[in-house]
Amino acid sequence: MKIEEMTTKEFAEAVARDPIVFLPMGATEAHGIHLPLCTDTVQPEALCAALAEKFDGLQAPTVNYGQHSSTRNMSGTITLRFDTVRSLVGDILDSLSSQGIRKVVIVSGHAGSLHMAAIKAAAEEVVRRTELKLMVLTDYDIAYRFPLSEKDYPDGHGGIIETSRVMAIRPDLVRSKKPKGLFEDKRFMVVPDPESCYPEGMVGDATKASAELGKEINRFIFDNLADLIRKNFGV
Amino acid sequence: MKIEEMTTKEFAEAVARDPIVFLPMGATEAHGIHLPLCTDTVQPEALCAALAEKFDGLQAPTVNYGQHSSTRNMSGTITLRFDTVRSLVGDILDSLSSQGIRKVVIVSGHAGSLHMAAIKAAAEEVVRRTELKLMVLTDYDIAYRFPLSEKDYPDGHGGIIETSRVMAIRPDLVRSKKPKGLFEDKRFMVVPDPESCYPEGMVGDATKASAELGKEINRFIFDNLADLIRKNFGV
Amino acid sequence: MKIEEMTTKEFAEAVARDPIVFLPMGATEAHGIHLPLCTDTVQPEALCAALAEKFDGLQAPTVNYGQHSSTRNMSGTITLRFDTVRSLVGDILDSLSSQGIRKVVIVSGHAGSLHMAAIKAAAEEVVRRTELKLMVLTDYDIAYRFPLSEKDYPDGHGGIIETSRVMAIRPDLVRSKKPKGLFEDKRFMVVPDPESCYPEGMVGDATKASAELGKEINRFIFDNLADLIRKNFGV
Amino acid sequence: MKIEEMTTKEFAEAVARDPIVFLPMGATEAHGIHLPLCTDTVQPEALCAALAEKFDGLQAPTVNYGQHSSTRNMSGTITLRFDTVRSLVGDILDSLSSQGIRKVVIVSGHAGSLHMAAIKAAAEEVVRRTELKLMVLTDYDIAYRFPLSEKDYPDGHGGIIETSRVMAIRPDLVRSKKPKGLFEDKRFMVVPDPESCYPEGMVGDATKASAELGKEINRFIFDNLADLIRKNFGV
Amino acid sequence: MKIEEMTTKEFAEAVARDPIVFLPMGATEAHGIHLPLCTDTVQPEALCAALAEKFDGLQAPTVNYGQHSSTRNMSGTITLRFDTVRSLVGDILDSLSSQGIRKVVIVSGHAGSLHMAAIKAAAEEVVRRTELKLMVLTDYDIAYRFPLSEKDYPDGHGGIIETSRVMAIRPDLVRSKKPKGLFEDKRFMVVPDPESCYPEGMVGDATKASAELGKEINRFIFDNLADLIRKNFGV
Amino acid sequence: MKIEEMTTKEFAEAVARDPIVFLPMGATEAHGIHLPLCTDTVQPEALCAALAEKFDGLQAPTVNYGQHSSTRNMSGTITLRFDTVRSLVGDILDSLSSQGIRKVVIVSGHAGSLHMAAIKAAAEEVVRRTELKLMVLTDYDIAYRFPLSEKDYPDGHGGIIETSRVMAIRPDLVRSKKPKGLFEDKRFMVVPDPESCYPEGMVGDATKASAELGKEINRFIFDNLADLIRKNFGV
Repeated sequence: MKIEEMTTKEFAEAVARDPIVFLPMGATEAHGIHLPLCTDTVQPEALCAALAEKFDGLQAPTVNYGQHSSTRNMSGTITLRFDTVRSLVGDILDSLSSQGIRKVVIVSGHAGSLHMAAIKAAAEEVVRRTELKLMVLTDYDIAYRFPLSEKDYPDGHGGIIETSRVMAIRPDLVRSKKPKGLFEDKRFMVVPDPESCYPEGMVGDATKASAELGKEINRFIFDNLADLIRKNFGV
Repeated sequence: MKIEEMTTKEFAEAVARDPIVFLPMGATEAHGIHLPLCTDTVQPEALCAALAEKFDGLQAPTVNYGQHSSTRNMSGTITLRFDTVRSLVGDILDSLSSQGIRKVVIVSGHAGSLHMAAIKAAAEEVVRRTELKLMVLTDYDIAYRFPLSEKDYPDGHGGIIETSRVMAIRPDLVRSKKPKGLFEDKRFMVVPDPESCYPEGMVGDATKASAELGKEINRFIFDNLADLIRKNFGV
Repeated sequence: MKIEEMTTKEFAEAVARDPIVFLPMGATEAHGIHLPLCTDTVQPEALCAALAEKFDGLQAPTVNYGQHSSTRNMSGTITLRFDTVRSLVGDILDSLSSQGIRKVVIVSGHAGSLHMAAIKAAAEEVVRRTELKLMVLTDYDIAYRFPLSEKDYPDGHGGIIETSRVMAIRPDLVRSKKPKGLFEDKRFMVVPDPESCYPEGMVGDATKASAELGKEINRFIFDNLADLIRKNFGV
Repeated sequence: MKIEEMTTKEFAEAVARDPIVFLPMGATEAHGIHLPLCTDTVQPEALCAALAEKFDGLQAPTVNYGQHSSTRNMSGTITLRFDTVRSLVGDILDSLSSQGIRKVVIVSGHAGSLHMAAIKAAAEEVVRRTELKLMVLTDYDIAYRFPLSEKDYPDGHGGIIETSRVMAIRPDLVRSKKPKGLFEDKRFMVVPDPESCYPEGMVGDATKASAELGKEINRFIFDNLADLIRKNFGV
Repeated sequence: MKIEEMTTKEFAEAVARDPIVFLPMGATEAHGIHLPLCTDTVQPEALCAALAEKFDGLQAPTVNYGQHSSTRNMSGTITLRFDTVRSLVGDILDSLSSQGIRKVVIVSGHAGSLHMAAIKAAAEEVVRRTELKLMVLTDYDIAYRFPLSEKDYPDGHGGIIETSRVMAIRPDLVRSKKPKGLFEDKRFMVVPDPESCYPEGMVGDATKASAELGKEINRFIFDNLADLIRKNFGV
Repeated sequence: MKIEEMTTKEFAEAVARDPIVFLPMGATEAHGIHLPLCTDTVQPEALCAALAEKFDGLQAPTVNYGQHSSTRNMSGTITLRFDTVRSLVGDILDSLSSQGIRKVVIVSGHAGSLHMAAIKAAAEEVVRRTELKLMVLTDYDIAYRFPLSEKDYPDGHGGIIETSRVMAIRPDLVRSKKPKGLFEDKRFMVVPDPESCYPEGMVGDATKASAELGKEINRFIFDNLADLIRKNFGV
């Protein structure tokens, strides 16, 4: 059930059942010439919708913006600052907690290390001051465990896995021409032009992506995550 | 065109045309027993979509959360702090500006005075340090100029106008049973329980709302706003 | 009684009577060629003095600076940032509360929307964490309800009402030559030169102002406000 | 000339003469059973008025609140936080600088070390980013150089010097019964009850204070400060 | 050469040679019953000293505190907040940059994800506003690439690698009794008692550690890092 | 005992004895052509080591950076901002307090007024929210009470006292050629080039310094401070 479609009364009734709230954290970020800027939004949104249904939980309204370092200078990336993401997540969690919610799963489509650190920093603070039971991950924590055939590596941002997943979720948003790209390692240098690490704006051979593979990966993520949730929340 | 559905390359090409970006600011807020928590989201989203089409502009991804004072203790309201809204809007504007965007219209569905102040505070700062031409309003700045018949006043949060508008946009989200409510004035007291000003959680006689009236009001807002945009941006 | 003129012992004794504290928020702001920069200071100061006498309350030391958007580039306006006003008001309220004060009325002479939002944001936070009963308004919330004759509108910043009020309070500070001015609407644009909305630096026909009218308006405000205070604090 | 009494036009004309602005920083602080809470306000205010006249400068509106550590728990002390004082002073200086003012003298009546640090921290930042020539002191930097007879020491907060000065400036505000007090040294301990260092709330033998002595001290401060200003600003 | 041992004149002369500055970021953190709280300090300190000598660079004074999440409740861990680490690193880099330094390598002994994010967040901001060429890593980015024999895994915080390294650097600080420990995975839960993930306060079989192995690992890290530095800075 | 050399278990055992923690605050600051940049570090470090031994207390890891105003533009000074020092000290104290420590003595080698204000501001806040008994000083609060012969004045930053002290502690770090310097008073002006107050980068006649004198002064400081500690903590 989507929180946004509920009335105040329905929400109050749902809270009484002690549901898990699933919060999809999306992003607006360049993902190569073939994927839409909402690539990191549609993935956790679909996942949270399925999980909410599975666990009779609530799907919170999507956050459509995140923090971006590597791709911040690429056309189409809209980035928040670290502190803004931290505040945003902290406020939402505080508000959910004060509404009586006791279980939250945050799934971020964007896996950038500062972005995830911002979410976790907010989460740590909330956990110290509330009773909230809180699970925080990016779906790529699981997605990258999906075994591709060896020759398909390296695969990363906008690569086979990500392209396939979006093809499975929103095929209308994936362009037919697909790129191949490599990651140019900067060897721990913090550079003002991190986009130079991604000459093609993505990493991997997206021509090998398919909706079938995407469904398989999405199922893999869903199953693994559902299992973790069962263990974590005893449901 | 929706920014979120574009690729990085399409976005770059669109920016070259110097388009107006329309940013819908939504909210997750209690709106009585008859309206969904996304009431303040669907209104500016529909408006921005129509304006983006009309002016060949770009529709930015929706912000689904806002700052709430009066309804913050009502079930279902998820509130950000003032500073979070200000940072969020400032970051999005800075990012759009650094992407080459020069014209932005922000339409907020929520009209709370602190919420609007947060957006305007961000806007003022951005305007001082960039070349952005920026228009900021809540659609209720115009909506409340729509003339109801005298006996339909007072009308406000979740009342005839708002209910009618949502009935016109997302009839599936409006419950059939509709309330009547009054505003209890606290005479400038800043109280810890501001929801007590809204015994029914809304203001007005929502039983008089209709999709037809909603369409008329939405058209009124669209026409007025389109006219202002033409004058402001010379388009 | 003015807090600033009391000794520590007298203040302690006064607190024991559970008095209402009246805090005048002034400003240093351009008000046309005829009014002094302290226009927004003398009005709430006079009002708070009268109210403190009426209700046997305490008049807190005046805050002589505020936040200004529209007039910030005009000669003579000294502006604080939003956050500074919020901190200032929050600190004063926290300090009064920890001193045992339980009732405060803040009257701001400046009515700018961000300025008032800063005061209200501070007030909301204090109300949530203390037992303070708190009333916050600008005297213009009431002043603009005073009915001028129809031909005297539009009237605003530095216009008939404001000029008349200062003529009644501090006639020595009002220059004899008085301007007429109009407001140029920017149609929701957030501009870097908001002073362009005020070609004369004020709005209304100040030549029609008089000390007699000012006394009448000041009486109107005092009576209305005294009535609200009686109801709000049960005194 | 008082800035607050000038119109926008008069201020603009005055700025063209490149005047020194004198900003009196006051406080609302317990000063023993004999002195008013505005003790730290009336002293720098009188001094700034005299200096403004002497140097044909401008007297800025008084700041009536400061930061207090030692006396913060005493009845009647209203304290701001360090950051608030720093922001307040920084904003006023930034605003004066953007108005074309190039010379400012800040005189603080309160000499607390954190309070002065807050003012100086703001001053250092402004001096790095503007062309402002800026002098910052508490009048007690000079007052305590006034030689009392040896048996009159120790003298400090609310003692002979301070009481005498207020008797010279605002005799109506000084109570006839005067205390004697000692300072109890806490030997570098940072304690939660710093008022325990001041069993009488003041330090020194105030019974020896007189308006004549106060005039002499005030003259001593004025002369010394006028001399410093002449050298510092070449006027 | 250690910056702290140089005079102002010697530092100025050294800067003229355009040296690389090596900044060791240490920590005060529980590392099991066998390792000292300065475990994360001695490792990067020794490494930076060797690198500074190798590249004729400067060793900056060590930062002895860091941010800790997992071990924050363990006895002996002294933790800074995220923002403090970010400010600290940002200030040091800004100061070095304004002193004419153009190349900096930050080596953090602590590898916690929020700690590293704080350092990187500071680094990203500095790189955007200065000309600094900046390399940021934890020595564990390289240390964990050292191949242990398969049966020695899992190895982590306070395990074989870390114990061996400290035995090679400061054998006097390693206690003779050594523990074995496992990591208890919390499956993405953000918990208030993260120390429960480390029942022994460390991970791995420290009984297998040796100074010889430590020397080998330290050499491995030094060689790899020296190679990266040569490539990154062209020296 | 040095905290950094203890294990987690040893620290826990030590805490049970309710020890005093001594925290040396150092700095990296220009001190003339004869003294090392760590001059303000070695002094409080040696003092804290001796005090920790004397009182069977714990010596916390040294903070090697501080806030500098006057010398910030001199070669070799690395400065933190006020807020960073305040956060750093606040975090360390909070962490010590949550670890069960109840008595802390902070000794800062740098005596700058803003630097000390930052430490004290942090200390005041911690004292209000914890049970910590806290003593804060710079060793120069005592060092400058050591009576030099009259002709040796003025003496200050990098002068006879400071040079002698470092000669007694770390003779290897003091250069043989020693300068004489005067302080050029800026008469309360806040200037962008405060180093101009120190034409020689130091104040006093360092040629008169000696290790013997240094030992005498260090003994004087140690004895006075030990006495204060005995009184303050009843040990």
